[in-house]
Amino acid sequence: MRTRPLKVALLGCGVVGSEVARIMTTHADDLAARIGAPVELAGVAVRRPDKVREGIDPSLVTTDATALVKRGDIDVVVEVIGGIEPARTLITTAFEHGASVVSANKALLAQDGAALHAAADENGKDLYYEAAVAGAIPLIRPLRESLAGDKVNRVLGIVNGTTNFILDKMDSTGAGYQEALDEATALGYAEADPTADVEGFDAAAKAAILAGIAFHTRVRLDDVYREGMTEVTAADFASAKEMGCTIKLLAICERAADGASVTARVHPAMIPLSHPLASVRGAYNAVFVESDAAGQLMFYGPGAGGSPTASAVLGDLVAVCRNRLSGATGPGESAYAALPVSPMGDVVTRYHISLDVADKPGVLAQVATVFAEHGVSIDTVRQQGKDGEASLVVVTHRASDAALGGTVEALRKLDTVRGVASIMRVEGE
Amino acid sequence: MRTRPLKVALLGCGVVGSEVARIMTTHADDLAARIGAPVELAGVAVRRPDKVREGIDPSLVTTDATALVKRGDIDVVVEVIGGIEPARTLITTAFEHGASVVSANKALLAQDGAALHAAADENGKDLYYEAAVAGAIPLIRPLRESLAGDKVNRVLGIVNGTTNFILDKMDSTGAGYQEALDEATALGYAEADPTADVEGFDAAAKAAILAGIAFHTRVRLDDVYREGMTEVTAADFASAKEMGCTIKLLAICERAADGASVTARVHPAMIPLSHPLASVRGAYNAVFVESDAAGQLMFYGPGAGGSPTASAVLGDLVAVCRNRLSGATGPGESAYAALPVSPMGDVVTRYHISLDVADKPGVLAQVATVFAEHGVSIDTVRQQGKDGEASLVVVTHRASDAALGGTVEALRKLDTVRGVASIMRVEGE
Ligand SMILES: NC(=O)c1ccc[n+]([C@@H]2O[C@H](COP(=O)([O-])OP(=O)(O)OC[C@H]3O[C@@H](n4cnc5c(N)ncnc54)[C@H](OP(=O)(O)O)[C@@H]3O)[C@@H](O)[C@H]2O)c1
Ligand SMILES: NC(=O)c1ccc[n+]([C@@H]2O[C@H](COP(=O)([O-])OP(=O)(O)OC[C@H]3O[C@@H](n4cnc5c(N)ncnc54)[C@H](OP(=O)(O)O)[C@@H]3O)[C@@H](O)[C@H]2O)c1
Repeated sequence: MRTRPLKVALLGCGVVGSEVARIMTTHADDLAARIGAPVELAGVAVRRPDKVREGIDPSLVTTDATALVKRGDIDVVVEVIGGIEPARTLITTAFEHGASVVSANKALLAQDGAALHAAADENGKDLYYEAAVAGAIPLIRPLRESLAGDKVNRVLGIVNGTTNFILDKMDSTGAGYQEALDEATALGYAEADPTADVEGFDAAAKAAILAGIAFHTRVRLDDVYREGMTEVTAADFASAKEMGCTIKLLAICERAADGASVTARVHPAMIPLSHPLASVRGAYNAVFVESDAAGQLMFYGPGAGGSPTASAVLGDLVAVCRNRLSGATGPGESAYAALPVSPMGDVVTRYHISLDVADKPGVLAQVATVFAEHGVSIDTVRQQGKDGEASLVVVTHRASDAALGGTVEALRKLDTVRGVASIMRVEGE
Repeated sequence: MRTRPLKVALLGCGVVGSEVARIMTTHADDLAARIGAPVELAGVAVRRPDKVREGIDPSLVTTDATALVKRGDIDVVVEVIGGIEPARTLITTAFEHGASVVSANKALLAQDGAALHAAADENGKDLYYEAAVAGAIPLIRPLRESLAGDKVNRVLGIVNGTTNFILDKMDSTGAGYQEALDEATALGYAEADPTADVEGFDAAAKAAILAGIAFHTRVRLDDVYREGMTEVTAADFASAKEMGCTIKLLAICERAADGASVTARVHPAMIPLSHPLASVRGAYNAVFVESDAAGQLMFYGPGAGGSPTASAVLGDLVAVCRNRLSGATGPGESAYAALPVSPMGDVVTRYHISLDVADKPGVLAQVATVFAEHGVSIDTVRQQGKDGEASLVVVTHRASDAALGGTVEALRKLDTVRGVASIMRVEGE
């Protein structure tokens, strides 16, 4: 074993960074044995230098992250600051000054992954980010390496723990969205400003990263269709139950049937209770992968939290250090397939639509005609009525999102349709 | 991209090998793009040269596997013959003649993994075998790489599809073992001689491989306690149901509480229906991993079959080819922890014991005394009796296997105990 240590600069020492530092200390011998050389924490960049940080040598702490990554003797920079800047500039500066990088930054990777990979390649360095998607769950490495000899057709996952906690609460207690969110906030599962989670931004970033890796193409954040879960109601859960389903916020990346394009989207959807993703409870994450040869695989575990995320960061750190010792680099970006990303209108799936309609004869015929005119074929219809008001629940066969959109627009124009109470996609069948 | 192809020798062209060859042809462009060089099938060794093999150029087929691996121009040998010899000698010969090796051979890896890894290291070559455990499910790579910065404490899995199919059938239909086995055989899930599966030999080989990788130590096949599932009865399933459990054949690798030793075992066990492994249906496999930082992870998918297994083989092939191009080798055996493997008697778990007893006063007191004398504490007892015959179902708290063994031996000596109908471990709580 080499005795000269590999030097690690830690950028950020918050929820994730503090756990990375802790495990680097407590597991130092194991890390050294697994890497083939000891690793040394050479510097820790933070915003507030005077905060007491247990187990961190104060002489290592600096607010000058730029100077730290420019030192020139750093082997690996671990970026766990988050956000776009200064993280982006720090990472590219690190490459230019000879370091490889491990990051947990999904927002940055989803937005600028291509440029960062290019910077890594130019400098012959590694960029690893297993922790950026689904925390502790090994997903990037299995997709990029284990399935490298296979053709992935679909990735379907619960990749945001906050929203899964909320939806699970709504499902199990009948609570409304706000009540469930309040509980998530009180228990620390939701941040004070939960927008990134509940509006699906966080999941969309992960979908972009996953789609790119799964299909060997480039998927930008803007390519991902995104719908949050703030409008999911207790009534939606009741409807889902009647269908033998539950509701999950899903990230779905698909290769088109002809193989010539891909789609990526995040939205709430009904899935059958028999689907393995339906039983993913609380803040857990799980991702389903379908490929030509392997068939259906599922990966399940904690999608966030300081120590699970640190586990993923440290797995990458070991890999990058090993690469460094052997003078090699790991598999970088693989976007050779260069497939176009189709718009949401091209996505084909099933739909569950609840309509408030006048309770009089002929309404069903009118509604059915509209579906037929738009080429959307109906699977089942359920009518419930009393006192001149009625509701109509329509479940369709597979149709394009564009066709469904046209159908709904036309339905809204019918005199007998008082309103479209909800539209939800049905997945996982 | 390099235009000179990497040369692959395929040893064996049966269920798995024929799929490897097929995908190498159909996915040639993707493989080339992902590796950075084309791969060429340079030779195929089989036993029966005259068998028609669709898609295989007959001029590549040979019965002289030894000559093929000695050719000297082979970059990667894919060993999918199975069994100990000639596979073992072919693999070491391959290393000596400059090739790296990808294998799906769990029996060989479990028996001779250490020697094969040593041969790979001596020659500076790679030995990869993702397909040897749980077919298509990425497991070796996540354990060896993704969790390389973490400390794994437990691996608990369903790693044999044949037995899971049989047990699932017994559970869902109430069938007995023989009936379920017959159905598995008729559907091609069980081989004509099912011994390796139903007696747990196959699962034990996988347990040895998993324990070694998870705990960075060496676990030999002989170190694995093994009990098959041929004696599981419909009555056991009925008892399991009463406890809110089902029965699975589990491979369990554990680090002792003090961290100083490990155990590895394969046996049928009751697990709660709420445990994610309880809902693994049919011939699917799933493995639960518990580690310090990541917490609980689960990996699920098809554990066997030609094309799923080929997916894993090809993932390894891509990795090994990439290593070859960069002049590096991947992470090899990591056995630095050198932990002793404790005998089964040291394993601590819970037990479900059914006794046939005389239906007279004082029997329960006698039985309870025996448990107490052996330091095995009882959680619940259920008594059912009629016509002078009764049964007593005891569920214990956690106790060592040695203590339980002593208890059962003493119980058998009681006049009032007519027989010990079944003993089953209870796991996953
Ligand atoms: N938390 C999770 O469960 C989780 C899961 C997966 C991925 N991630 C990702 O991991 C990254 C870090 O998340 P986190 O939860 O650990 O965040 P956090 O708790 O807010 O910590 C951020 C850290 O960065 C430091 N920092 C902020 N701005 C800085 C600057 N300009 N220069 C130097 N240091 C700066 C902060 O310093 P102070 O300590 O002085 O404030 C703090 O130590 C993010 O990309 C996040 O998306 C987090
Ligand atoms: N099948 C699965 O689902 C699965 C899953 C995971 C792992 N595996 C592992 O994969 C390996 C292969 O399994 P398999 O199911 O593909 O076996 P298989 O169908 O029996 O194929 C074995 C192949 O090896 C050839 N062979 C046998 N002895 C040979 C010799 N002395 N020299 C050259 N070739 C020889 C056979 O030739 P002929 O074609 O001429 O008979 C045949 O092509 C085993 O280690 C197995 O444990 C299999």
